[in-house]
Amino acid sequence: MKEYAFGVDIGGTTIKLGLFKTNGTQMDSWEIPTRIEECGRYIMEDIGRAIKKKIDDKGLTLNQVAGIGLGVPGPIGEDGTVYNCVNLGWGVFNVEQKLSSITGIKVKAGNDANVAALGEMWQGGAKGHRNVVMITLGTGVGGGIIIGEKILAGTHGAGGEIGHFPMVDSETETCGCGKQGCLEQYASASGIAKTAGKWLNKRDTPSVLRNMKDISAKEIFDSAKAGDQMSVDLVEFFGEQLGKACAYISCVADPEVFVIGGGVSKAGSIVTDVIEKYYQKYAFHASRNTEFVLAALGNEAGMYGSVRLVLE
Amino acid sequence: MKEYAFGVDIGGTTIKLGLFKTNGTQMDSWEIPTRIEECGRYIMEDIGRAIKKKIDDKGLTLNQVAGIGLGVPGPIGEDGTVYNCVNLGWGVFNVEQKLSSITGIKVKAGNDANVAALGEMWQGGAKGHRNVVMITLGTGVGGGIIIGEKILAGTHGAGGEIGHFPMVDSETETCGCGKQGCLEQYASASGIAKTAGKWLNKRDTPSVLRNMKDISAKEIFDSAKAGDQMSVDLVEFFGEQLGKACAYISCVADPEVFVIGGGVSKAGSIVTDVIEKYYQKYAFHASRNTEFVLAALGNEAGMYGSVRLVLE
Repeated sequence: MKEYAFGVDIGGTTIKLGLFKTNGTQMDSWEIPTRIEECGRYIMEDIGRAIKKKIDDKGLTLNQVAGIGLGVPGPIGEDGTVYNCVNLGWGVFNVEQKLSSITGIKVKAGNDANVAALGEMWQGGAKGHRNVVMITLGTGVGGGIIIGEKILAGTHGAGGEIGHFPMVDSETETCGCGKQGCLEQYASASGIAKTAGKWLNKRDTPSVLRNMKDISAKEIFDSAKAGDQMSVDLVEFFGEQLGKACAYISCVADPEVFVIGGGVSKAGSIVTDVIEKYYQKYAFHASRNTEFVLAALGNEAGMYGSVRLVLE
Repeated sequence: MKEYAFGVDIGGTTIKLGLFKTNGTQMDSWEIPTRIEECGRYIMEDIGRAIKKKIDDKGLTLNQVAGIGLGVPGPIGEDGTVYNCVNLGWGVFNVEQKLSSITGIKVKAGNDANVAALGEMWQGGAKGHRNVVMITLGTGVGGGIIIGEKILAGTHGAGGEIGHFPMVDSETETCGCGKQGCLEQYASASGIAKTAGKWLNKRDTPSVLRNMKDISAKEIFDSAKAGDQMSVDLVEFFGEQLGKACAYISCVADPEVFVIGGGVSKAGSIVTDVIEKYYQKYAFHASRNTEFVLAALGNEAGMYGSVRLVLE
């Protein structure tokens, strides 16, 4: 009878909501603003109200709803306790209990990077696999690790925090985390652009990038495709950092497939190709044939994954 | 009624066997030689015979035996299939089915490094924890990863193969795996000794190590404790490689505790202290307080862990 479930992905400005069939078909999706004022105290009520309204509008009953899955942008314990979601102003409380008491529906919550990985495993680029690592290349570098169809959240919520792999010992600039030389400083959208800026200052070689203002990762990948040598070198450097990082991941978690998502992945197969090239250089032989695929669900992966989480 | 279980750890020259109570108490232990002749075809029968004899000698019945746990020195699938255990001469076959058909007892098998980690979690240095990474510093560098009390074996049996983390890009010598610059080349017993040999050749600094023939890891740690500067530097180099490696592991699996075992760990807390020192330099802040402990079960960890495995 329980043929429906809701997926909710809470972002810093927008909350994405979706109504799904429990077989994974999305029936409806919509957004509401994230009200972070007063330490984000209205967020749970806003979500609860939105879901109850959707249930009414669709003429559903609570008995038909298997649950609500929730992706939150911060560390979260196995029992549903969030620990200081700074983007939302949240302190420490149990989001599952809170939303469940508002809606009368079972709730299961996970970290957003982890539920996105679960979503790509369930209905996206890694469909059909059970051991999946998703790497999200956006403003930062996020990771989500799925072992035997379950999220590896980690003791301190740091499972899959691969953006903070120590990669370059000689780095003098400091990462947002306080260390120097983290993967995120080279492989995120801003990291790629920053590296380009440094190389343009340091080197004399001509490059189409010199004519651009505010170089973005997209322009670097586009210029590399068009044959600009410095852009090609930048893409290789990016690929070497990520390929080596994936080799570390395989020596620990040994997934079947790496799913590459986030804004940078919109450049397409050039991204997975260059990562895979360097992965094969650094990977232990037993895992050298691990697949690399592009993410397929875009920014709906978190919604899909949170549904999968509550259906476990 | 099933109050007993057997633990078996198959090594290249000796098979360790133990009779345990299911609460973890070891009742008896003994060894038999590993007959690797004729592609190791007698190994399973030898183990079966040894266990049946022990059951008779102790006046037990099959009904009292919960199972036999088996640690094997090579990759093994979830269903009990071994894939080319080169040390034993084995090809591809299902060890669980084979030993079970010989003994009439339930059998569960795992990779030896992984079951050792499970043993340390159950009754050793990591007792009371659920997320554990064990690092074995012996001839090579092995790793076993336990998440939620379960072994993370990996898609290709490479879960925890941390000895092959790519650590030093400039390395010219080749590791046993075919790559250059693997962790094992610096952090194994032989790796430490080899690094010492290189440094003694390259540097002019005085050291008590110059008076020794065939320097071992133990002598280097002993000399470091006695204040020999080159030995101190060697221990620091060793600690930096392993500390950084543990930082990678934490960004993926985020354990509660690292258990350090193997021959090198006999040098004592100097080993865990220097690894922890560099771990704190490289680790992501959320996992910076992860504990480091010495292994407690020595070369019986595999026996304990295989028992724990069959009791799951």
